[in-house]
Amino acid sequence: MTVPSSHRPRLRELGIELGRLPTGPLNAISDVAGVRVGVTTLIAGDGPLVPGTGPVRTGVTAIFPHEGNPYVAQVPIVVHVINGAGEVTGRSEIDEWALLETPICLTNTLSVGGVYDAVLTWMFRQAASLGHEAWVIPVVAECFDGHLNDIQGRHVREEHVLAALDGAVGGPVPEGSVGGGTGMTCHGYKGGNGTASRVAETGGGRWTVGALVQANHGARDDLRVGGLNVGRLLTPTPPVRTGEGSIIIVLATDAPLDTHQLRRLSARGALGLARTGSFAGNGSGDFVIAFSNYPGNLVPPEAHGAPRALTTLYNDDMNPLFLAAVECVEEAVLNALCAAGDMVGRDGHFAPGLPSDQLRDLWRAHTPSRNA
Amino acid sequence: MTVPSSHRPRLRELGIELGRLPTGPLNAISDVAGVRVGVTTLIAGDGPLVPGTGPVRTGVTAIFPHEGNPYVAQVPIVVHVINGAGEVTGRSEIDEWALLETPICLTNTLSVGGVYDAVLTWMFRQAASLGHEAWVIPVVAECFDGHLNDIQGRHVREEHVLAALDGAVGGPVPEGSVGGGTGMTCHGYKGGNGTASRVAETGGGRWTVGALVQANHGARDDLRVGGLNVGRLLTPTPPVRTGEGSIIIVLATDAPLDTHQLRRLSARGALGLARTGSFAGNGSGDFVIAFSNYPGNLVPPEAHGAPRALTTLYNDDMNPLFLAAVECVEEAVLNALCAAGDMVGRDGHFAPGLPSDQLRDLWRAHTPSRNA
Amino acid sequence: MTVPSSHRPRLRELGIELGRLPTGPLNAISDVAGVRVGVTTLIAGDGPLVPGTGPVRTGVTAIFPHEGNPYVAQVPIVVHVINGAGEVTGRSEIDEWALLETPICLTNTLSVGGVYDAVLTWMFRQAASLGHEAWVIPVVAECFDGHLNDIQGRHVREEHVLAALDGAVGGPVPEGSVGGGTGMTCHGYKGGNGTASRVAETGGGRWTVGALVQANHGARDDLRVGGLNVGRLLTPTPPVRTGEGSIIIVLATDAPLDTHQLRRLSARGALGLARTGSFAGNGSGDFVIAFSNYPGNLVPPEAHGAPRALTTLYNDDMNPLFLAAVECVEEAVLNALCAAGDMVGRDGHFAPGLPSDQLRDLWRAHTPSRNA
Amino acid sequence: MTVPSSHRPRLRELGIELGRLPTGPLNAISDVAGVRVGVTTLIAGDGPLVPGTGPVRTGVTAIFPHEGNPYVAQVPIVVHVINGAGEVTGRSEIDEWALLETPICLTNTLSVGGVYDAVLTWMFRQAASLGHEAWVIPVVAECFDGHLNDIQGRHVREEHVLAALDGAVGGPVPEGSVGGGTGMTCHGYKGGNGTASRVAETGGGRWTVGALVQANHGARDDLRVGGLNVGRLLTPTPPVRTGEGSIIIVLATDAPLDTHQLRRLSARGALGLARTGSFAGNGSGDFVIAFSNYPGNLVPPEAHGAPRALTTLYNDDMNPLFLAAVECVEEAVLNALCAAGDMVGRDGHFAPGLPSDQLRDLWRAHTPSRNA
Repeated sequence: MTVPSSHRPRLRELGIELGRLPTGPLNAISDVAGVRVGVTTLIAGDGPLVPGTGPVRTGVTAIFPHEGNPYVAQVPIVVHVINGAGEVTGRSEIDEWALLETPICLTNTLSVGGVYDAVLTWMFRQAASLGHEAWVIPVVAECFDGHLNDIQGRHVREEHVLAALDGAVGGPVPEGSVGGGTGMTCHGYKGGNGTASRVAETGGGRWTVGALVQANHGARDDLRVGGLNVGRLLTPTPPVRTGEGSIIIVLATDAPLDTHQLRRLSARGALGLARTGSFAGNGSGDFVIAFSNYPGNLVPPEAHGAPRALTTLYNDDMNPLFLAAVECVEEAVLNALCAAGDMVGRDGHFAPGLPSDQLRDLWRAHTPSRNA
Repeated sequence: MTVPSSHRPRLRELGIELGRLPTGPLNAISDVAGVRVGVTTLIAGDGPLVPGTGPVRTGVTAIFPHEGNPYVAQVPIVVHVINGAGEVTGRSEIDEWALLETPICLTNTLSVGGVYDAVLTWMFRQAASLGHEAWVIPVVAECFDGHLNDIQGRHVREEHVLAALDGAVGGPVPEGSVGGGTGMTCHGYKGGNGTASRVAETGGGRWTVGALVQANHGARDDLRVGGLNVGRLLTPTPPVRTGEGSIIIVLATDAPLDTHQLRRLSARGALGLARTGSFAGNGSGDFVIAFSNYPGNLVPPEAHGAPRALTTLYNDDMNPLFLAAVECVEEAVLNALCAAGDMVGRDGHFAPGLPSDQLRDLWRAHTPSRNA
Repeated sequence: MTVPSSHRPRLRELGIELGRLPTGPLNAISDVAGVRVGVTTLIAGDGPLVPGTGPVRTGVTAIFPHEGNPYVAQVPIVVHVINGAGEVTGRSEIDEWALLETPICLTNTLSVGGVYDAVLTWMFRQAASLGHEAWVIPVVAECFDGHLNDIQGRHVREEHVLAALDGAVGGPVPEGSVGGGTGMTCHGYKGGNGTASRVAETGGGRWTVGALVQANHGARDDLRVGGLNVGRLLTPTPPVRTGEGSIIIVLATDAPLDTHQLRRLSARGALGLARTGSFAGNGSGDFVIAFSNYPGNLVPPEAHGAPRALTTLYNDDMNPLFLAAVECVEEAVLNALCAAGDMVGRDGHFAPGLPSDQLRDLWRAHTPSRNA
Repeated sequence: MTVPSSHRPRLRELGIELGRLPTGPLNAISDVAGVRVGVTTLIAGDGPLVPGTGPVRTGVTAIFPHEGNPYVAQVPIVVHVINGAGEVTGRSEIDEWALLETPICLTNTLSVGGVYDAVLTWMFRQAASLGHEAWVIPVVAECFDGHLNDIQGRHVREEHVLAALDGAVGGPVPEGSVGGGTGMTCHGYKGGNGTASRVAETGGGRWTVGALVQANHGARDDLRVGGLNVGRLLTPTPPVRTGEGSIIIVLATDAPLDTHQLRRLSARGALGLARTGSFAGNGSGDFVIAFSNYPGNLVPPEAHGAPRALTTLYNDDMNPLFLAAVECVEEAVLNALCAAGDMVGRDGHFAPGLPSDQLRDLWRAHTPSRNA
């Protein structure tokens, strides 16, 4: 059995500082005040695949936009599709209403139905406001972990989802082979969850943009760290699956952005992803889910009546936020790689952790000016 | 308990013939050769709502694009959103790859997760080609039937989905309160499933366009039949829920349309829907799912290699197909209303069947020229 | 030479009242306070086409969103595409910034470049704020009038555009064969400009939605008035060109809608268009341009700094506005047909005016209940 | 007066070879057989701005998809919007029909109307097939050159456009301060036209993807060459305008791609752009225009009749083309920078050429492994 290491250094701990903007205090999506993350990590069994039994290398990540119930105080949200060969349930409703009604869950491809169902159970338990005429459409996104995991076993059960939801907290965000990221691979190494944040001053304020990614994409040769084509410089390791994989990017901000501005912000996720070398392969389900939890802009369910005042920035003040989105997506991907250690999955499939020491040495050797 | 009538006349049996184009032999989506439909109808219990128990007025409709396994021979497909306050899982993958890998299922809003999961079970049983590195994203669409049904009970179980899938056949298509349409209401009357077809000659051929709708939308005042504002002419009946509801429209054709042309065809669904009086209310999940099963254009999974020849019409030959789509959507909505009889659901909620005799009389009285 | 009649009755003057909502006082787009319209109508010459000389049957319509300079106080705006075989310049910028910087001009297809250029001339004359680092992208939309007009002659000159812009006023809006609508044909009859409005009470207020259309679309057989398939009931007249044509729909409202809500509103234009029988043919350039001039939401150019308060309705209050949009688009199309009289154009091409008296008689005969 | 140098080394002549795929023989968009490019470069006057007179630093670039008349043999084409604060006329028709009817012209922002008009003149001269019922919508894209050029003077006249169109040829493509790129600035240096190509083997064939860019975007600090953050390593030069600017990217391929696949290919343009450091600022008009000139897929105007066979690749064979698009966009941007020398424009505004020698030295010093 493989235990994910919790002590591997993050990118900045290797001395690699990318981008122009400062990070938030935790360099995590939870730097956006109120954002909460919960994970259930399922790791069990070893050896050959026994369909329906294991080995199990999967899980679920739950993200809440604020301290309260997402249904009771709904945040503006959008979904941007980089390459759509994947699933984000609730995307159509988000396109139309641009409001989030449920937590966001990330899991494996074949557990989408089960997690969807479990979120409904949780919603009906929570919200007294959800009468019998009410309905919600959960937001569940996925990547494929079948290289390491008995994915057809659909091992994410209702109780696992409820645990991730009930356990969601602010503060440091677990990275690497945890939650929905447990069985992920990325650029030829072990992937998983990663997070980062940036602080941008604009529009008369100081705003935070945070990213959390479930990184399961990319070929080794394409991996770039700060532009350095690390994928071709690191000592070759045994090949991991050559599939193209996917990435789910969740972007949170406390900047007062309306739906239209969030849409523009979310599109910058692709540019951050490109910096690490992705070309968004044919089979990738690369999505950006972006929300703003600026307190004054939250909407109660079924609100109606006199018009409301929505606080929003001017277009001309968007650039620092755009840059923040690009930078924290780039770093969240690399943090996912840094955090995830070696993992052996089903049928002995092996995903090596990114060799941190070697990365640090390469960085020092090849980019002296940047460290000066 | 309410038993759906199977002997109510269809629109044309009332002497109401709409549109310029001829219908196919069955005036049904199955006039597109190979299209198969299966339904599981769940009607049980009466009286007050006992959450998790009933009364039950729901079900699932399964649609196959051809005689074979959808995964093994994939048809080009698109999803068009009229108003997106609803769910069609698989929409993102369809946007990206424009291929259908699974059957299409229609059900109630809260059973999407369960049906998604059940379709996976069915897929893995069927397709030997689905190895452990394979994944599929089922296409499951929904409308809300909670006015008549204990929707939070999520009564559509795996066996119900498997039965609808295994029972899908060509030939006459059941209409009214059946399958996913069981608990639907529409324009103040009992709604449900409806179907129609048109034959269009263009592009050197004779092609069929068929529609199947799950109709759960509209206010009574807005209902139009052939332009006649029937909703305000019929004898008033007790009010059904005033909610706006939704409609899922499935459009099938045997015309050789590529993805781009299907996208254009699907957009005409909105125009057909408008003819019956809908203005696509804020809360509606109004979607058009459109595919072509032209045999030469089907694609095997993971196909690659030398380029293929895709057969396609010229843009300038699209108009008859556009008109066909408009006309068969209009008539499928009205057929759903004509077919569905009275239903009493949970808590004694009553949905009256559209009074067919009165509709026929109104039509005769008000539109003499059209019958001349 | 053909003189457009200014005394033909509007639809309501024929006793035909469609829809559920009341109209504004003028039943025109200018019921939205501040909206101004100007037209330059170019009618000259008769007989055979002499390329570059005539006959001329064309013009330009200018629409201002409010009393002031559009650049100085920018309104939120969107463009919705029903079928895109046409041109609305500025659409990309509108998609991105969702702000209108210039007046909106409607003209013929081949005069887009010239009108674009002329609007620039007007803008640089007007706006002292437009320094040498400034740029604007005019919004110019078009339909094809080459059946009646020497369109390749590009007879709309800079002075004509400037005259329409400088002459834009509130109050009654000219209809029929005027401005950009001069050479239009619609459903087999003479088309042109038409307008209508609706008043909707929702969201704690009373709001106006107004439409102005440049109607150049549709086949005779498909024409519907209040659902009555008039196109097949009226005495046949000599065939006008069978081409499919296009329509430009401008929707204005004083309701406080943000960009996202305007996008949803604009999509209802298709549903209104469908009510008159259009199926949006392959060759149509059918666009909806929708803006809100709610005073508090206007934005100065290059605004930045502290966040602003944007006033906006709740989603759940949108329905009356959606219905208003559907109804005023339907009626604006029919007003265009009612207003435009017979016209003889180049090479003796004849476009008959819709026979109003016969339409009134048909309406009375076939729809007694609606008049009861 | 400033004369653009024609002898500055291209990126590869500096020893900087980026990407995994081989280039075509010219490393230019014209490696896609048949693609032709013509430029008219307008450089006149010096000193203070005299509105309407100069100084002039502008021009027009014309691109033909093949050897013939674009109207007579129409190629499939799409437009992808990265950030839409700019203009590509014809985009709506391209979205709808996905066919190119005219040459593509690139120019300055305020000359769009004039160039549009001039293309019409050219079209009507060329195409005997364009009768009086015919219409076309030219494709004209733009970036803002007002920092160096008297842009409000609209100096691109009809004869300049006709010259670029008539002079379009295959073979080497002029780069730097030529054609529409004459007055461009990019990442703090002189920008302009740039081109590159890649050859990809997939789908049973060997296909070329070529890019031509009009590069006018980016801040100096963000400039990356092969990941190296050159913008912060080069010796600072006097600041050029800090505006964000825009880029027009034209992608050509001879691979048999249908519209849907071209749409997917075009989206990769954003990823290539990101590699050079862009974050697609608020004011940018960043567009990708992508076409395939695979001979068997060309369509004559107003084609109709029996279905045609369209040759197309399988989805699973797209990845090498996606990578090719990313790589040639990246290199085309850098070739634009390499090719454009110093330029002094209106009011003495100075745009320094990228210091090639220093770039080469930086590359050698910082990336030894990559040169090994």
